[in-house]
Amino acid sequence: MQIAMIGLGKMGYNMTLRLLGGGHEVVASDRNAAVAKELAGKGAVFAENVADVVSKLKGPRVAWVMVPAGAPTDAVIQELSERMSKGDVIIDGGNSKWTDSKARGEKLAAKGIHFCDAGTSGGVWGLKNGYCLMVGGPDEAIKICEPAFKTLAPAEGYAHMGPAGSGHYVKMIHNGIEYGMMQAYAEGFEIMKTAPAPYKLDLHKIAHIWGYGSVVRSWLLELMEEALKEDPELKALKPYVEDSGEGRWTVQAAIDQNVPAPIITLSLQMRQRSRQDDSFGAKAVAALRQQFGGHAVKKA
Amino acid sequence: MQIAMIGLGKMGYNMTLRLLGGGHEVVASDRNAAVAKELAGKGAVFAENVADVVSKLKGPRVAWVMVPAGAPTDAVIQELSERMSKGDVIIDGGNSKWTDSKARGEKLAAKGIHFCDAGTSGGVWGLKNGYCLMVGGPDEAIKICEPAFKTLAPAEGYAHMGPAGSGHYVKMIHNGIEYGMMQAYAEGFEIMKTAPAPYKLDLHKIAHIWGYGSVVRSWLLELMEEALKEDPELKALKPYVEDSGEGRWTVQAAIDQNVPAPIITLSLQMRQRSRQDDSFGAKAVAALRQQFGGHAVKKA
Repeated sequence: MQIAMIGLGKMGYNMTLRLLGGGHEVVASDRNAAVAKELAGKGAVFAENVADVVSKLKGPRVAWVMVPAGAPTDAVIQELSERMSKGDVIIDGGNSKWTDSKARGEKLAAKGIHFCDAGTSGGVWGLKNGYCLMVGGPDEAIKICEPAFKTLAPAEGYAHMGPAGSGHYVKMIHNGIEYGMMQAYAEGFEIMKTAPAPYKLDLHKIAHIWGYGSVVRSWLLELMEEALKEDPELKALKPYVEDSGEGRWTVQAAIDQNVPAPIITLSLQMRQRSRQDDSFGAKAVAALRQQFGGHAVKKA
Repeated sequence: MQIAMIGLGKMGYNMTLRLLGGGHEVVASDRNAAVAKELAGKGAVFAENVADVVSKLKGPRVAWVMVPAGAPTDAVIQELSERMSKGDVIIDGGNSKWTDSKARGEKLAAKGIHFCDAGTSGGVWGLKNGYCLMVGGPDEAIKICEPAFKTLAPAEGYAHMGPAGSGHYVKMIHNGIEYGMMQAYAEGFEIMKTAPAPYKLDLHKIAHIWGYGSVVRSWLLELMEEALKEDPELKALKPYVEDSGEGRWTVQAAIDQNVPAPIITLSLQMRQRSRQDDSFGAKAVAALRQQFGGHAVKKA
């Protein structure tokens, strides 16, 4: 099928390559025209901007938006919707908040334009392995876009989740689970790293054998093995972890839905703690210990 | 090689089959002689009791103990050690606490008997997939037993971790991580189960597609998919979760080693909470809310 890819960062770029490899015609556009031109050299159709994208698509037009969540996504969808016609499809493949996707779906539906939200997992490995795709949107739009979804995903890695917003909802929970799993591995490996003498455990070897027959084998564990192979003590890294939204939205959803989710919540908060060089909370506890018990404190 | 298997529960039974399949001679014994006889019908050598096991082994004798941790393991190891000779090997493949294994290793070493602790993961699937084996013990004993270890484990699923106790130490952490991963999935699936209208998510389908290309793919997720396939709402189960020791030992190790491990700790405590029908803590919070704010309580 014919599809546009707007936003050619590491995700949009690799997805364009995967779509081209699947025999699709991809109209590629990015604020940085050089990247779109590079992809044109690999078989894509170059488009200068959103207007050019729309003019190069045949109806029903299908445009995949792969730009940062929030204002950039809003701006591209707004411009597309102004230039598209009834029956065309806009897909947001980024990490938008599901409530935004739900609202966009409703707003675009009022104009007769279809909206799909494609929660996308797989990171930089997606080009090779395929991207797991959790897609929300109306049946009619799903039907139009399915050939592209099936190329982007591994054989059984795509499914329609429900109406607009449901794709990003499921992707949000996926990432919340990911936070918890990563923190569980992290704690286990840190305990093993500090195992009492005479033990001196080979963390890389442990990550490796756990990949075979153990209950904790997973893709994240394979990535941990890779990281430990290159740098067994992770010396090249600072202990600083970002978060990119889905974790905190998952916590918010859990609270709104009255579901206790302490592990996902604490995994987010451990990332927040990792970013504090000078924790006021820790100072407050030290101050109180000194106040009531005269316990020694470390002075700044 | 020749090896004895003492304790023919679901783990010892399947391990015996796997060893026989690998061409080893297995002397099989259990308090329930019928099970040992059943295995004799499948190629094992029947032994009536520990004394009979020792008499049927040729030196250096190797006996794998696969009975419940604690007193049963102590009793079998004690009896074996009284009947074995210098250079023989006792392997504890159960879920013993690593500090017990360390102590047993030291005590047996004083008598010239080797002790290995084999942390074993794989559960009921181990017969087919092989068991991930994390083994502690002296090099000399490891060398004697390696043919059996290599049969029990998948191709790359076995490694020597260090001196006695280190195998069970690593297995303990493995299980601690498992607690955290299970709780992370559990929270995510519960949030999705209670997704706000109009969403009605197909949890089984989600577990299935996450197996392809997603970051959270894992063996535990495959098991979740199986469980949801048979019973999408898990109606057949009570929300009651046991724990079998390793989780609490991991928390204890984390505290002793000054490693913050909140996810593993809380995963254990969520299991403990699942076993409370009548939480005094929850009643205490309700009582306090009523005291200071006159908030409504539910009367027993």
